[in-house]
Amino acid sequence: MILQKVNQPQDLKTLSQEELLQLAEELRSEIIRVCAQNGGHLASSLGAVELIVALHRVFDSPRDRLLFDVGHQAYAHKILTGRKDVIHTIRQEGGISGFTKVSESEHDAITVGHASTSLANALGMAMARDTLGQNYHVVGIIGDGALTGGMALAALNVIGERKPKLLMILNDNEMSISENVGALNRYFKEYQTKKWVQDTQKWGKQVLEGISPKLFNLVDRAKEAAKLMLHQENPFYAWGIRYVGPVDGHDLPGLIHILEQIKELDGPTLLHIVTQKGKGYGVAEEDPIYWHGPPGFNPENPTKVSKGYSWSAAFGDAVTELAYQEPRLFVITPAMREGSGLVRYSQTHPERYLDTGICEDVAATVAAGMALRGLKPVLAIYSTFMQRAFDQIVHDIAIENVPVVFAVDRAGIVGGDGATHNGVFDIAYLRTIPNVQIAAPKDALELRAMLKKALSLGAPIAIRYARDNVEKAPEGAWPEIEWGKWEVLKEGREAYILSFGKTLKYALEAAGDNPEVGVINARFIKPLDKGMLERLALEGYKLVTTEDHQRMGGFGSAVLEAFNELGLKPDIRVLGLPDRFFDHGSIPRMHHEAGIDAEAIRAALAEMGVGIKTATHRA
Amino acid sequence: MILQKVNQPQDLKTLSQEELLQLAEELRSEIIRVCAQNGGHLASSLGAVELIVALHRVFDSPRDRLLFDVGHQAYAHKILTGRKDVIHTIRQEGGISGFTKVSESEHDAITVGHASTSLANALGMAMARDTLGQNYHVVGIIGDGALTGGMALAALNVIGERKPKLLMILNDNEMSISENVGALNRYFKEYQTKKWVQDTQKWGKQVLEGISPKLFNLVDRAKEAAKLMLHQENPFYAWGIRYVGPVDGHDLPGLIHILEQIKELDGPTLLHIVTQKGKGYGVAEEDPIYWHGPPGFNPENPTKVSKGYSWSAAFGDAVTELAYQEPRLFVITPAMREGSGLVRYSQTHPERYLDTGICEDVAATVAAGMALRGLKPVLAIYSTFMQRAFDQIVHDIAIENVPVVFAVDRAGIVGGDGATHNGVFDIAYLRTIPNVQIAAPKDALELRAMLKKALSLGAPIAIRYARDNVEKAPEGAWPEIEWGKWEVLKEGREAYILSFGKTLKYALEAAGDNPEVGVINARFIKPLDKGMLERLALEGYKLVTTEDHQRMGGFGSAVLEAFNELGLKPDIRVLGLPDRFFDHGSIPRMHHEAGIDAEAIRAALAEMGVGIKTATHRA
Repeated sequence: MILQKVNQPQDLKTLSQEELLQLAEELRSEIIRVCAQNGGHLASSLGAVELIVALHRVFDSPRDRLLFDVGHQAYAHKILTGRKDVIHTIRQEGGISGFTKVSESEHDAITVGHASTSLANALGMAMARDTLGQNYHVVGIIGDGALTGGMALAALNVIGERKPKLLMILNDNEMSISENVGALNRYFKEYQTKKWVQDTQKWGKQVLEGISPKLFNLVDRAKEAAKLMLHQENPFYAWGIRYVGPVDGHDLPGLIHILEQIKELDGPTLLHIVTQKGKGYGVAEEDPIYWHGPPGFNPENPTKVSKGYSWSAAFGDAVTELAYQEPRLFVITPAMREGSGLVRYSQTHPERYLDTGICEDVAATVAAGMALRGLKPVLAIYSTFMQRAFDQIVHDIAIENVPVVFAVDRAGIVGGDGATHNGVFDIAYLRTIPNVQIAAPKDALELRAMLKKALSLGAPIAIRYARDNVEKAPEGAWPEIEWGKWEVLKEGREAYILSFGKTLKYALEAAGDNPEVGVINARFIKPLDKGMLERLALEGYKLVTTEDHQRMGGFGSAVLEAFNELGLKPDIRVLGLPDRFFDHGSIPRMHHEAGIDAEAIRAALAEMGVGIKTATHRA
Repeated sequence: MILQKVNQPQDLKTLSQEELLQLAEELRSEIIRVCAQNGGHLASSLGAVELIVALHRVFDSPRDRLLFDVGHQAYAHKILTGRKDVIHTIRQEGGISGFTKVSESEHDAITVGHASTSLANALGMAMARDTLGQNYHVVGIIGDGALTGGMALAALNVIGERKPKLLMILNDNEMSISENVGALNRYFKEYQTKKWVQDTQKWGKQVLEGISPKLFNLVDRAKEAAKLMLHQENPFYAWGIRYVGPVDGHDLPGLIHILEQIKELDGPTLLHIVTQKGKGYGVAEEDPIYWHGPPGFNPENPTKVSKGYSWSAAFGDAVTELAYQEPRLFVITPAMREGSGLVRYSQTHPERYLDTGICEDVAATVAAGMALRGLKPVLAIYSTFMQRAFDQIVHDIAIENVPVVFAVDRAGIVGGDGATHNGVFDIAYLRTIPNVQIAAPKDALELRAMLKKALSLGAPIAIRYARDNVEKAPEGAWPEIEWGKWEVLKEGREAYILSFGKTLKYALEAAGDNPEVGVINARFIKPLDKGMLERLALEGYKLVTTEDHQRMGGFGSAVLEAFNELGLKPDIRVLGLPDRFFDHGSIPRMHHEAGIDAEAIRAALAEMGVGIKTATHRA
């Protein structure tokens, strides 16, 4: 085992080529082992093994900064940078993060989870280095999917203008999470098949073997470099960025060689490497979509397991059925077909389906344009990624009350993905926007009712639901819903718990069979059901609100505002997530820690002196 | 006067070439006249006159959709589409908007004000048209500045993949609001000077004169078009988008000719035109930055007038001085050098200054990268544009508590620019994010104190101030400030008004010399001064909060949350902007209408029974 001897990146410096090749294989086995045990980002981490070994051989982390875009492909990097003994804890509570994280290791240059941020971060770092007169390497590693994000493209534009010394590596696996979309990706694909590209690759490799970086710079400046591997028919050329590639991203000696050749080049350089997701693990190579982030599996006999029926699936089923009834319905996803439950929809209604790639801002504004011209767009989007469309929701949608329906998935704490993926701000940032309405169903049937109704209301409406499983609703069931009205799930004599979506189960658990305590499904968050709030306060009920969202600015805050406007002062406790970030871990554990679960609700009721039977308490 | 005969676009169809040329001149005079009277977006509107005349001659609005990016260059469009009799009311209260606005005219395809949205909107509209089996033209007109925005670049990527029939016009005036930055712009500039471009332009024009659109499509598909005017050495080629140009954007007959030639082309086409900002008005041609959006002037003798000493200038002066004291300070602007008061700074500290172009997301993440590597970045950004960096503030900055200082300009209602530019959501969307702190100075001296202190705190901090003038602070004055502590500006016996920034003046006016009513400068919005809140409540004071921000989720809402947490129930009224958008108009008028001014505060105090002397009431 070579890996036994490797604790830090500098341990790679003395390994022979054969040992490095063996190390790559050992890393691959270790990644499979860890993902089999815990689940995890298997396919992309397998695809980046050689690249990461080469980077740590050629560069000098933590002095040099390696920035992994999204950060989910960096398992090998974690193992090689002092974390091999804890890699088995990845994504587990108290364990290491599934992404790179600044506060976890000095080798993690950025804290990340969302796509397309590495190039702007790298530009900032390179400029900081140059401003402070320091001397180290900054390397941004970005996938072809992340490159479809506007902020990556715009960052290239600034990089090409400022021209700091900066290495960018385009890790092109022809697939991000979904199949890749976008013209640039098609371009790269065609590009690689061209004979002259293949010729210059071969020729370029020979040339590079005999050329020093200094000479390379010289050649480059003399504009002769285009005749080597930098061809003008390439979008990066227009951006003023030196382009090298494409090269085989699994040819470890080749990668090391080329990185050594280009590491001292002046200005920005983009190295285009081609890799395969799931490399070296048959099932993952064959179906990299499933094996992108599988749950645990048997490494000897890897089989797909059902993850259960999720809210995403419930949405996907609902919207697929609805599309048959409503010919103007159109579904948009920013690169989350599988995650948003849209595989079936994309097959049954391909002509009314658009995957924009990873650009939530574009997705929102495309939806606006569609709605302005008579379609009924539904934008399926994770709560955390919708943060990227905030301005577009204000500017392109809300100002003119443009009817876009947002199917907001992964609302609340999400578990294994941690702080970067928690969808815990959407109520706060949406409810401050005029015209935007927010609803949250309690089950799949209510989701169907809300979705159908929302399409008829002619206003921007967000319907939020959690990362969780849910009971499947009967096909063909389209119940009516009284829009804007809350629902009393259980009557109470002294107090009511107000909640919605996922935390309703905590409310029902806390109330138990206590006749004093009622539960209200506060399924409309904006506008609130002010009539019911008024009655509750006037009739003297004590109130507790609880939500899987930041307390600051959330649903409870809206309720406080409403009572203040009504001039009413009921006895009320507001439970919600405290003013801090939550890392990866078990969702119920974090809900407990945050004080939004049944126990916290009971404690709040008790503090208010509501007579709860002791028998209903848990230990 | 040709303009007298022109009321709607169809009136252009019958004009001779000479009449069209005369019309363009008359439009130019009218634009100068209107801007001289009211102020307005002069230079860009002058630059787009021929383009707009040509578009309305060739296309058929409102059936065809013309989408003007940003929408501030469209004065000629407004005049030609039934609004010539009200064009003199532009940007005035009750008058027409300075941007295109869907609710103002059927000819305005999008409501706009922020840059880079037109292409995504156009894509959505083209897809809606095709999905619904309709048949009309969609034309997106985008400036070279707006094209530096990530969402425009990402939209190109989707357009190049989906390939709907869609005409994009790149209105390249080599300058957006500031001087343009970014590699693509430099590329375009170089591109135009190339001999083969000039040759193919000439040649292409001849060829186009004898070619029908059908043949053009044929030729295009045969990949021969590249030999006409579509050359492969062009970034649009990589995106799979047909490129035509560059052509002279002030050659009206030429523009009409080429638009007629290309309007029926299949798939997406980009027409690159070159125009001059301020065209036809000497001073504006010479100094398009000043004349981008001047206040009123004498059209016969146009001279620059001082707009007074603004908060932006106060920030610019402060940061310029601070940079001499703090060598790690670095200032970033997303294309708002002039607007953010950074002209002097950019000249005195060019090596610590970055203009990213119009990409606020990139700007925020570049700042994060800089802060992670030892610099002290200050991001100067308008409140409304910071909406575009919301996710980056969460993901790249707040999670790891990365110390980026945000100088948030144009907070609150901004007046003439209207709904798209009001900075009335920032408190709501920032305060829900853990680790982010928010402060708001009462004057330029306090701004200096906050700015200096913020740089030492090692946390993300937003300092917000209004679009307004302010008294200049003495140079060299760097007072200390007790961070997190509010300031009692006036003692009161019965009630306190809590406010900050711009609305403090209303609080002081409402309190007048009434001994019952005190005023507190609640200059720290997150965290709040909870100690003071607790004392106020425990001592039984009645409270009024007022703010130039949405009531939903704003400062008052935070105060209600704090009291609820403290278990205190003071008598409190929360004043803030109601849950609707405010159009352009006079700021004091809108503050009055919103109920946040002195009169509204007095009314709230009176409702609470605070003994205000009748003498201090206004009529």
